[in-house]
Amino acid sequence: MNTFGTLFRLTTFGESHGPAMGAVIDGCPSGVPLTTAQVQAALDRRKPGTSALVTARKEPDQVELLSGVFQDKTLGTPIGALVRNTNQRSQDYATLATEDRPGHADAVWRERFQHRDPRGGGRTSGRETLCRVIGGAVAEALLARDVPKLSLVAWVSQVGPVVAGPVTPTRAQVDAHPTRCPVAAAAAEMERRILEAKAAGDSLGGSIDLRVDGVPVGWGEPVFGKLKATLAQALASIGAVTGVTWGLPGGMKDLERSGLDFHRAPATGASAVYGGIQGGLSNGEPLELRVFFKPPATLAQHAKEGRHDPCILPRAVPVVEAMAALVLADAHLLQCARPHQA
Amino acid sequence: MNTFGTLFRLTTFGESHGPAMGAVIDGCPSGVPLTTAQVQAALDRRKPGTSALVTARKEPDQVELLSGVFQDKTLGTPIGALVRNTNQRSQDYATLATEDRPGHADAVWRERFQHRDPRGGGRTSGRETLCRVIGGAVAEALLARDVPKLSLVAWVSQVGPVVAGPVTPTRAQVDAHPTRCPVAAAAAEMERRILEAKAAGDSLGGSIDLRVDGVPVGWGEPVFGKLKATLAQALASIGAVTGVTWGLPGGMKDLERSGLDFHRAPATGASAVYGGIQGGLSNGEPLELRVFFKPPATLAQHAKEGRHDPCILPRAVPVVEAMAALVLADAHLLQCARPHQA
Amino acid sequence: MNTFGTLFRLTTFGESHGPAMGAVIDGCPSGVPLTTAQVQAALDRRKPGTSALVTARKEPDQVELLSGVFQDKTLGTPIGALVRNTNQRSQDYATLATEDRPGHADAVWRERFQHRDPRGGGRTSGRETLCRVIGGAVAEALLARDVPKLSLVAWVSQVGPVVAGPVTPTRAQVDAHPTRCPVAAAAAEMERRILEAKAAGDSLGGSIDLRVDGVPVGWGEPVFGKLKATLAQALASIGAVTGVTWGLPGGMKDLERSGLDFHRAPATGASAVYGGIQGGLSNGEPLELRVFFKPPATLAQHAKEGRHDPCILPRAVPVVEAMAALVLADAHLLQCARPHQA
Amino acid sequence: MNTFGTLFRLTTFGESHGPAMGAVIDGCPSGVPLTTAQVQAALDRRKPGTSALVTARKEPDQVELLSGVFQDKTLGTPIGALVRNTNQRSQDYATLATEDRPGHADAVWRERFQHRDPRGGGRTSGRETLCRVIGGAVAEALLARDVPKLSLVAWVSQVGPVVAGPVTPTRAQVDAHPTRCPVAAAAAEMERRILEAKAAGDSLGGSIDLRVDGVPVGWGEPVFGKLKATLAQALASIGAVTGVTWGLPGGMKDLERSGLDFHRAPATGASAVYGGIQGGLSNGEPLELRVFFKPPATLAQHAKEGRHDPCILPRAVPVVEAMAALVLADAHLLQCARPHQA
Repeated sequence: MNTFGTLFRLTTFGESHGPAMGAVIDGCPSGVPLTTAQVQAALDRRKPGTSALVTARKEPDQVELLSGVFQDKTLGTPIGALVRNTNQRSQDYATLATEDRPGHADAVWRERFQHRDPRGGGRTSGRETLCRVIGGAVAEALLARDVPKLSLVAWVSQVGPVVAGPVTPTRAQVDAHPTRCPVAAAAAEMERRILEAKAAGDSLGGSIDLRVDGVPVGWGEPVFGKLKATLAQALASIGAVTGVTWGLPGGMKDLERSGLDFHRAPATGASAVYGGIQGGLSNGEPLELRVFFKPPATLAQHAKEGRHDPCILPRAVPVVEAMAALVLADAHLLQCARPHQA
Repeated sequence: MNTFGTLFRLTTFGESHGPAMGAVIDGCPSGVPLTTAQVQAALDRRKPGTSALVTARKEPDQVELLSGVFQDKTLGTPIGALVRNTNQRSQDYATLATEDRPGHADAVWRERFQHRDPRGGGRTSGRETLCRVIGGAVAEALLARDVPKLSLVAWVSQVGPVVAGPVTPTRAQVDAHPTRCPVAAAAAEMERRILEAKAAGDSLGGSIDLRVDGVPVGWGEPVFGKLKATLAQALASIGAVTGVTWGLPGGMKDLERSGLDFHRAPATGASAVYGGIQGGLSNGEPLELRVFFKPPATLAQHAKEGRHDPCILPRAVPVVEAMAALVLADAHLLQCARPHQA
Repeated sequence: MNTFGTLFRLTTFGESHGPAMGAVIDGCPSGVPLTTAQVQAALDRRKPGTSALVTARKEPDQVELLSGVFQDKTLGTPIGALVRNTNQRSQDYATLATEDRPGHADAVWRERFQHRDPRGGGRTSGRETLCRVIGGAVAEALLARDVPKLSLVAWVSQVGPVVAGPVTPTRAQVDAHPTRCPVAAAAAEMERRILEAKAAGDSLGGSIDLRVDGVPVGWGEPVFGKLKATLAQALASIGAVTGVTWGLPGGMKDLERSGLDFHRAPATGASAVYGGIQGGLSNGEPLELRVFFKPPATLAQHAKEGRHDPCILPRAVPVVEAMAALVLADAHLLQCARPHQA
Repeated sequence: MNTFGTLFRLTTFGESHGPAMGAVIDGCPSGVPLTTAQVQAALDRRKPGTSALVTARKEPDQVELLSGVFQDKTLGTPIGALVRNTNQRSQDYATLATEDRPGHADAVWRERFQHRDPRGGGRTSGRETLCRVIGGAVAEALLARDVPKLSLVAWVSQVGPVVAGPVTPTRAQVDAHPTRCPVAAAAAEMERRILEAKAAGDSLGGSIDLRVDGVPVGWGEPVFGKLKATLAQALASIGAVTGVTWGLPGGMKDLERSGLDFHRAPATGASAVYGGIQGGLSNGEPLELRVFFKPPATLAQHAKEGRHDPCILPRAVPVVEAMAALVLADAHLLQCARPHQA
């Protein structure tokens, strides 16, 4: 299914080498301030070609809002958005028409759909994530209006063996470095490793941390729509993601702690072990999640031309934020739908 | 929401200290062999009171099938199932009526629902998972008829600091030890630690591994219903789960490997790094997931009376299997719904 | 699918000749006053055996609330409700095991499900509607708390050739006559015709009118969830319903009127031609719908024993009300989920 | 909600006076032959400006397929389609910015969304239906591949007081006359009345009949997704529709018949009284529905310029067909998803 969400719903379409990518956001209330520039700014954060660390492909990715917005406010009708694919260069992929790319899902898709799009990765391409970023930009606009205290930031916390220590950065601090790691020393080392991998036609995985402050108490829908469950689905639906954890400030080491130790409230009064979620609902503390990415499979040919991402994590940061924003916008509307007696 | 699934749908109801727990399974095709004994056997695997390792509470948990089955075959109509709560002992909880239990979600639920059920954990209780096991039993019955090669087994792979090495056990081998860890040495050490924790009124977390053999190629619904995404949601919706990973046979260490190393096909030809999922779809190899559980919060009072689970992992094994079976039964029906040209 | 609704959701199960009928209502907010007696009262209104006009079958239909309610208030968790089938007399149906009942859907269901339940109509039985009445009772409880001005009443407006003129009755006025037609002269004539049909082993169809006052402006979800569309689905899902119209105070004759005449505001200022719905949304005027029922198919054998309903309309009145209440409760919650800027 | 369907899903967006209208069809299997020309041909059937009977507005309505189709076959990925709005002439509507149009839903939408799009009808405009026709074209392509015997045709059966008798036309016969009534004498009289209404700035309603041959036995999802219920929702979601009936070959007069008469199999062996649906499922006989339309509200100003449809029924015929095709394509996939034992 290419639709995500219950009330705040994102539907996406488009193959990486077809004419266009598109997104439809349904369920956004009316009156939310929203401009094309705002959505474009979000897209620019995931755009390729912005540093030596990421693919050299040029994709202008200009978004056009086709509906649902009038005079910079949402109408309450579905918001259609379009990005033309201008740099498909599907000739690059000509030789792929008959053979599957190692490490890619080509064989699996051919079996499932009884064909494989010879133009390229189609819906498995990372390019599909730009539709998520469009949806996330609208979700953030709604949250900014209705829950102004909420702030959501993701950053690169690990690249290969390089791990950044705990930090609570702003989005500006994250964007200040091309690795999107806000810890200077770790960022420098990550950068070195990524350039090394790039030169070697190699690639690196790692993790992204997500922190959301200001989530009201009680968001989430027991028992199958617990906040942690919808966040897990949202994040696991991103192509290269290979795991998600929440809480566990000490990482996997926390699992070795006994219950009396684990549940002991820290001196600060915070209980970060829960990652901001208890009983499946937000508990008023910061949401803290970690998303794991495997290193991308690469094609020697593309590697030679610099047309691949040796490490997708820097560009995945806005995608992680977008998926979280979509979940939270939906949780917000669902919470509104449970009126309590006056 | 208390419904899970798109075509094969489980709806659950019941509070731990109310009259009964119930499950409705909708969307199961007709003609699937199913007996009450079969469902009861599944429930008995998660029943408390079966060893010194788990809570001493006695809950007979007798299931009654109210609809959807006739002469030991499904009718194609919704299957209603009921388990009466016979051992609520809510007087134990009398003192809780006015104060929140530390480490529990009481405060969060009170904020959300503007009340808290003084009888106990209600829907946040582990008791809610028995409805999942009922659903899982029906899902397994459908899979057994339609995809007989599919086999699904989960086991305890870590308890506190004790980690069991790689293994591919049968369900019988898992059930042979009260820890549900099929690696003898690790199991013995886990048992020792759990009894120790029990004596100390303490508790332990850890991880459960899940392996599914025989999944046909191509199951899953791109892009938001990728198999890994629905599995992540399903498993993350279990109360104490604090993380999910797939692939990563070497654990978190795998994230440090470079792409050329990570994607290199092992000598066996298998590519376990993908955990059986590529492009979001099953790739024909075994599904391999790991589910992380935090140690349960305990109440001194309950600990004193032996009425708590010092380690919920042994009893969580059938719950993990049930959630996976529900996802796979749904994926199977969704795959049927995509007819290819003859 | 056996689930109805988006946020306020009713799931039903149970075959007419199985052990029990059940309903699960999910999505009802917490704190809504609700008693078993209230639900029972709703069920009693559709109970058979209450007058000479309806089937002589005795079905006590005692409801038990299994979850979701505590101390006469909803908990915000799913409400499970159960009614045991005590008077199945499936021996009556023994001879049916091998032959299809004329006018019934037996052949169709056998083709669809590759079997036919020899015990009776199963899910096609009118008995299935009691689960809808349970759901409707909860929906009305929510509406009574949150939209106290809303009042919803249905009545029999036609039986065979006997048509009752326009009327705006209370529910008490409707229940005052066994036909549930509040127009005395028409009711008497309907009664005569029904008894005549009963004596002849015959049956009668007709129509039920539905009026809802006090619906706030703007309920409904464009473009596919327009209020008239979900009402049409809800009412058309009732077994014997063969049509639905809204507006058209003059009946089908209104279709012959020209637009300038049709849209001319009546002297009263009301615009009943719209049936309370414009642009798919409630417009603040009374909702007015008409639901058409075909005469039920009868079995000579049952007719002989008085075990059939010569006219189901009197007993269908609470079912029509229940389906409308479910739609409106859902529309209310969906409307809550669209917060406007303060 | 702007999405329709469970497995075969249509999502639409676009305001009548915004930049574009769009449709996303998700869930269509791969390998279905589909060309842009095919979709364009469907759109051309609802296009305005084709005869003196309909609005003189020129809307070229050129569709562009943006995704999901490659080399004239569906890919199994979502199909995005776009139609630019080229003839908005919103200056016509300039005067409307501050006052509501009588007979339109302006006031209702303003209350609901706390604003009204001064550019025109937005999502309540009949222009929204072109997205349905795009979806219907894809649905018909799927049905043509998988259920080739199925044929679906709708026609105008009543305009104002002019009623066409029973007929079973082909689509070509329907399109042969600008009224889309295949009964010559009635068509001529309808044409005369429509031109008369046009000259008078008046409008006319009526009914459209729908007949589907070749529907396999057993389609539909009890109990809330009965085929008649989803068809009723689909058709009732069309703007001007004010009622739907099925069966009742003799019209409302059939409701006066007694059961023994009603259910008596006609000499032909057909049982048209059921409209092809029993127990909520297709019974193998032709589906027969009737859809009622109120006369459109008109604006004197538009009437003067010929920029309104005095009778929308001729242009609504392909919309009725599209909605039915969407329901049937979905029912087909849902039926595939219920595998029976081999």
